[in-house]
Amino acid sequence: MNLKVVLKIVGRVITMEAIVMLIPALVALFYGESLEPFIITIVLMLFLGVVLASINATKEFFIREGFFTVGLIWLATGFFGALPFYFSGYFPTFMDCLFESCSGFTTTGSSILTNIEALPKGILFWRSLTHWLGGMGVLVLATALIPTIGIRTKYLTQAESPGPVFSKLVPKQAQTSKILYTIYCFLTVAEAVCLKIAGMPWYDSFIHAFGTAGTGGFSNMNASVGAYDSMAIDMIISIFILLFSINFAMYFLLLTRRFKEVLKSDELRFFLSVVFIATAVVCFNIRPLYADWTETFRYAFFQVCSIISTTGFSTTDWLYWPQICQMIFILLMFCGACAGSTGGGMKCSRILVIFRTIRREIHHIIHPRSVEVIKLDGKVVEEKTINSILTFACCYVMVILAGAIVVSLDGFGFSESFTAALTCVSNIGPGLGAFGPAGNFATLSGFSKGFLSFCMIIGRLEIFPILVLLSPSAWHRS
Amino acid sequence: MNLKVVLKIVGRVITMEAIVMLIPALVALFYGESLEPFIITIVLMLFLGVVLASINATKEFFIREGFFTVGLIWLATGFFGALPFYFSGYFPTFMDCLFESCSGFTTTGSSILTNIEALPKGILFWRSLTHWLGGMGVLVLATALIPTIGIRTKYLTQAESPGPVFSKLVPKQAQTSKILYTIYCFLTVAEAVCLKIAGMPWYDSFIHAFGTAGTGGFSNMNASVGAYDSMAIDMIISIFILLFSINFAMYFLLLTRRFKEVLKSDELRFFLSVVFIATAVVCFNIRPLYADWTETFRYAFFQVCSIISTTGFSTTDWLYWPQICQMIFILLMFCGACAGSTGGGMKCSRILVIFRTIRREIHHIIHPRSVEVIKLDGKVVEEKTINSILTFACCYVMVILAGAIVVSLDGFGFSESFTAALTCVSNIGPGLGAFGPAGNFATLSGFSKGFLSFCMIIGRLEIFPILVLLSPSAWHRS
Repeated sequence: MNLKVVLKIVGRVITMEAIVMLIPALVALFYGESLEPFIITIVLMLFLGVVLASINATKEFFIREGFFTVGLIWLATGFFGALPFYFSGYFPTFMDCLFESCSGFTTTGSSILTNIEALPKGILFWRSLTHWLGGMGVLVLATALIPTIGIRTKYLTQAESPGPVFSKLVPKQAQTSKILYTIYCFLTVAEAVCLKIAGMPWYDSFIHAFGTAGTGGFSNMNASVGAYDSMAIDMIISIFILLFSINFAMYFLLLTRRFKEVLKSDELRFFLSVVFIATAVVCFNIRPLYADWTETFRYAFFQVCSIISTTGFSTTDWLYWPQICQMIFILLMFCGACAGSTGGGMKCSRILVIFRTIRREIHHIIHPRSVEVIKLDGKVVEEKTINSILTFACCYVMVILAGAIVVSLDGFGFSESFTAALTCVSNIGPGLGAFGPAGNFATLSGFSKGFLSFCMIIGRLEIFPILVLLSPSAWHRS
Repeated sequence: MNLKVVLKIVGRVITMEAIVMLIPALVALFYGESLEPFIITIVLMLFLGVVLASINATKEFFIREGFFTVGLIWLATGFFGALPFYFSGYFPTFMDCLFESCSGFTTTGSSILTNIEALPKGILFWRSLTHWLGGMGVLVLATALIPTIGIRTKYLTQAESPGPVFSKLVPKQAQTSKILYTIYCFLTVAEAVCLKIAGMPWYDSFIHAFGTAGTGGFSNMNASVGAYDSMAIDMIISIFILLFSINFAMYFLLLTRRFKEVLKSDELRFFLSVVFIATAVVCFNIRPLYADWTETFRYAFFQVCSIISTTGFSTTDWLYWPQICQMIFILLMFCGACAGSTGGGMKCSRILVIFRTIRREIHHIIHPRSVEVIKLDGKVVEEKTINSILTFACCYVMVILAGAIVVSLDGFGFSESFTAALTCVSNIGPGLGAFGPAGNFATLSGFSKGFLSFCMIIGRLEIFPILVLLSPSAWHRS
């Protein structure tokens, strides 16, 4: 392990993050609020960042260094992101700040705040900006902005990008990152403008655009998107949620006029089918609760999009909906958005490969001598990739169960413990019971908050970077 | 698909089952109860069995015919097993009878009865005998008793035996089946004698020996084993539960004095470690509820053994224990007993292989050029087997989620829906909430009872035989 180069990169990224933190500082300045929380944090980060970035290191950089760096950067990002919250004095303990920061960067959107509206606008802006930064990825941003130091950056973005297969749009990684962020910025601003037109103030529209873009779910309102009670706003957010949950490579294909490839995408078709079926089933079950089919569709569609994309906004407390709806939401939580999007969960492409592997297993019993390959988008998926996907799925369930064990130590029942862990690992936001759409995570013990923060990062990085970081053999020099 | 030979075998097995049903009929006769429920069923089964068995069929019999036959026989067994319950008139609907019969044969032990003690002794004897028959397997019994018709019976027992790898003790399958049943009978009688000595009446001791042997969990008491409130009985059952949860090949190794191979068994060591750790954690958490450490250990050990072995007996209503204990039980429900035992669940060997695959995946990231094999008991596990195990695990979770969806349609919350499905698929018995150790499954709708009965059979046969049965391409002649 080339620890020096790892620390050097960590230093550069922290420096970049310190500079990005000037944005919420400017917002605080604009609203005449205290700049202190941001200035202290920026100074601390700049100091550490510059020291680490000045390390002299060789350029040996392979996949394990990539995973290791990404794991370390995300832990550091979670920690430093918590400092403005801590210095603001609005959060009870440092663990609460850490939970909120990790929840932000990982685009989970679970909160320990009981009264969000009481916080200064600068702090809330930072809270939502973490969604935007974490959604597309801090490493992706870093490779787009910082000139390379000669290392193979593909190992970095590969470890951070969600999904089983990593596809570069253009040969150069820095170029790919720039294209991704350009599309990302464009869509975010487009949503903010739409929300403004639909009647939201500019500040709120950016907060919700950040929450949607990162598929995060932090709102500046206690009642989340439900506070505006506007059909137009609900529909705008639902549609942008879907736009941010599909593979960003699709936009690149659209821009380069490769429409056929978009239509051929198995994952996109699967994702849209699931959204359609889930919305239909939920509509059918909640119809008696609403005045007409339009209202029913509005609430059902918003909630299905919000959950499957792992955003976690809510327009109503769906814990009062029939139990079957909650079970469907739990299935959607496992599933998650498309690979290569800003969404979390296991990703549709993985679920699709698992389905096809099961089908192959059955065929193999019926025709033992048949040799069948599994295809995705018409391309053969390698056996090694299939194996990785299956291993990932098992690992995923195990991490959730481990998280549930920790939460149950606080005396929460199975339903709450399990969904709290699921919502954190899948980076969604709400769970069931006390952690439901109208609830929050304030009642958890410090230990549980810490562990769930860790689970969020495990989920955001799709488990393995953190496991590599925890593996003693990764620390050896070799 | 050679459907004729499949039906012929189904016919022979039904005939055998009809003859076995004479045992509970004799018990009913002994206690002077009505013989009618048994006689009607036996006549029906003999008629159908003989007709099917007389089909003229070729001997083409491969793995798909094996899976298909096993799936069909288990569905038929569940159905015919329900008839004595139905004709007895003690069960409200046929769906209830079907649920109870499937729960018996699959050794689940979930019941829809609200007052077990009100039933005739003959019916209760049949109810518990289904555990004993289903535990080691009706097909294994069939190959041990019925002379072969020239087909490769290994495909039959392979599809019915629990666990990822199928090991024959001796070259001839019929011989292996006989050895297994001899050990099984010996252990069952040994337990019944021990229970009699500890103060149980003969009838009760056999009922509980059947429940333990098949790792089923039906008792003739409403309060399950707790009704006897005896330290000796609790310990005898706990220990026999462990004996029935380990791979029966171990006994064969012991009998043939291959002690070293027993000690080398990774699965056995893993299983005993899990039992030890789980008991320790539960002890620590329930200590304040009991008078002294002995009492604490007695209850904790019994419950851990009962759950991990997927038996489902209870000596107390553990829903009142701290939440962490319930979470641990849920983990144990996923895990289950050893392969080649009478227990259900995913099986320890599979969990062990999954753990090792995850470890290999991490190693592979750290040392990308390394080629590592996964070993179990010092032997290399084939990549194809690993793939099957991972696919199985994913399928397992999916079946549970599907079951949970169906139960949630009855208005049960996530906790109850999920654990009801889990307990049925893993063949355990109790779930949480209304389905807890002191509850029952009576309040479910007929549809849910039917679907859960189906889930039990899916779980008992480890999913694939039923999926093959449902697959349209398996029905083709080819």
